[in-house]
Amino acid sequence: MKIIVIGATGTIGKKVTVALKTKHEVITAGSKSGDLQVDITSTTSIEAFYKKVGTFDALVSITGAGHFGPLPTMTPDDFNTGINSKLMGQVNLVLIGQHYINPKGSFTLTSGILDRDPVVNGANLSAVNGALNAFVTAAAIELENGVRINAVSPGVVEDSPDYFDTFPGHIPVTMDRVVAGYEKSILGAGTGKVITVS
Amino acid sequence: MKIIVIGATGTIGKKVTVALKTKHEVITAGSKSGDLQVDITSTTSIEAFYKKVGTFDALVSITGAGHFGPLPTMTPDDFNTGINSKLMGQVNLVLIGQHYINPKGSFTLTSGILDRDPVVNGANLSAVNGALNAFVTAAAIELENGVRINAVSPGVVEDSPDYFDTFPGHIPVTMDRVVAGYEKSILGAGTGKVITVS
Repeated sequence: MKIIVIGATGTIGKKVTVALKTKHEVITAGSKSGDLQVDITSTTSIEAFYKKVGTFDALVSITGAGHFGPLPTMTPDDFNTGINSKLMGQVNLVLIGQHYINPKGSFTLTSGILDRDPVVNGANLSAVNGALNAFVTAAAIELENGVRINAVSPGVVEDSPDYFDTFPGHIPVTMDRVVAGYEKSILGAGTGKVITVS
Repeated sequence: MKIIVIGATGTIGKKVTVALKTKHEVITAGSKSGDLQVDITSTTSIEAFYKKVGTFDALVSITGAGHFGPLPTMTPDDFNTGINSKLMGQVNLVLIGQHYINPKGSFTLTSGILDRDPVVNGANLSAVNGALNAFVTAAAIELENGVRINAVSPGVVEDSPDYFDTFPGHIPVTMDRVVAGYEKSILGAGTGKVITVS
């Protein structure tokens, strides 16, 4: 299977990449690193990226920024950070990528726990995650040629101890379980699913 | 109570407005109609609107456009319709309005059934609704001075028969139940709730 991993050098991305490489051809991508570069906030960059990759069987997106900060001082521009990057970046990877993906291929996006279990300073990412989860549910009933789509929604992960104070009382999830979530989406048969990892 | 209803001439808005006016001071607003005009896609317009209104006790938003169309031909620009209007329009009413609302006031936003029960052509509105629902859940834990926030999420409503074919098998919800959902948010004590009306 030819699998693209965007965000392959991130905390989650690097472990997912290692796991997938044992049995599949993996093309890694990132804004600055990886086999190929792509700026997910630019539709021109996404289009050029897919043209370079050619057809593929799975697109795994483990990337996208959001704004983290207090609601009382949050501005519309702050909020747009997550909208333009983690949300529209991933949505546009699907809207554009649907014209390049092989029949029976799959898209796997990454949301996160904040839509259902919010923390202080996280309103932007809560909204973005909620949008991504609903998007895969809806896109699944319209993607053609047997193409599937899911979102993996992990809690705070054990390999990101810097985030633990931001998520008080959240039990960090093991990287093995997170990797398994991606494998379920990519190698399983489900579609329109939010695969929560907790 | 001084209540602002944005989208007061819409199918839902006009019934909510009638119900609220029996006991409260209601200021109606819309892009072209109502006591005051506001373009929710413009932060400048929202800021000017709040300056004109002065302090208030409740903001009810029953407005915002989205893109309705097939996923296979949906473009990033199409998708931005709902992001800029129904999502960011309502989010910005809160981000800016939090600096004008009275202590113990409330924000009531409108999402809809598509995030949890998608229909063909609805991917944009599914994502927007999912974002709005998650946003109120998160914003509720950070709004100051006892200010509350909820989303009302109705199914297809009985007064919109033109939409029935778009929502096959959906049981239209009665307008009385929809109005009750808004009353629960505005006049009740809950916060961070998605009030589903089905």
